[in-house]
Amino acid sequence: MNKKVIDFIENIKYDDKGLVPVVAQDYNDNTVLMVAFMNKEALIKTFETFKVHYYSRSRGKLWLKGETSGNVQIVKEIYFDCDKDCLLVKIEQVGIASCHTGHRSCFYRTISKDGEISIVAEKVFNPEDVYKK
Amino acid sequence: MNKKVIDFIENIKYDDKGLVPVVAQDYNDNTVLMVAFMNKEALIKTFETFKVHYYSRSRGKLWLKGETSGNVQIVKEIYFDCDKDCLLVKIEQVGIASCHTGHRSCFYRTISKDGEISIVAEKVFNPEDVYKK
Repeated sequence: MNKKVIDFIENIKYDDKGLVPVVAQDYNDNTVLMVAFMNKEALIKTFETFKVHYYSRSRGKLWLKGETSGNVQIVKEIYFDCDKDCLLVKIEQVGIASCHTGHRSCFYRTISKDGEISIVAEKVFNPEDVYKK
Repeated sequence: MNKKVIDFIENIKYDDKGLVPVVAQDYNDNTVLMVAFMNKEALIKTFETFKVHYYSRSRGKLWLKGETSGNVQIVKEIYFDCDKDCLLVKIEQVGIASCHTGHRSCFYRTISKDGEISIVAEKVFNPEDVYKK
């Protein structure tokens, strides 16, 4: 792997669990699709394949986004923030949807100042069809 | 404060430090401006004022974004994700810039697959003029 990439990955400011938050944003229309975490290994795999890999906190392991659903995220651009403690990946979302609920974005609900919750997006797939046991 | 809002704030899944990551996105053109953290107090203050408050991890205290620079973030919409462990606020950024470096967005740099770093946005203010000692 390229030394510049290795230096970059080494110099990210991971938190005390070795994780960095990552925003996945649609490359075409700038919709924020999801936020998850990467560790060093996930970042290496993401650079190697240009498919987004995260670290699943719930499962405690490396996670190729789309490994079950097929909805992989193809990297178009990788941004990093002023403090090097957050990443933003602009991606092409295979299969349209990023969210395991079947919505395109994990951010499909809003809450108003008065606490009224609204669902602002339709499902684009039925999760039961995709995540079979 | 409205009971529905209190219930919402109580039911967010904060991490073991009591924090939740928050993406601030420009309401008009969907540019991701910054990512920071809120604790329960910051979320309450954000609902009360509809100006974004974060919890500063480096300073260990509540932080009204723009309290020094004047570049406050006016809340337009609050989204929450499928797992209720991340928020997205669509905002109007007073003073254009969100980043303390003088850039509009904290994500003003990209890295290519080969490790080439590019600055993809100009500064919109000089930080030395704003953050005087």
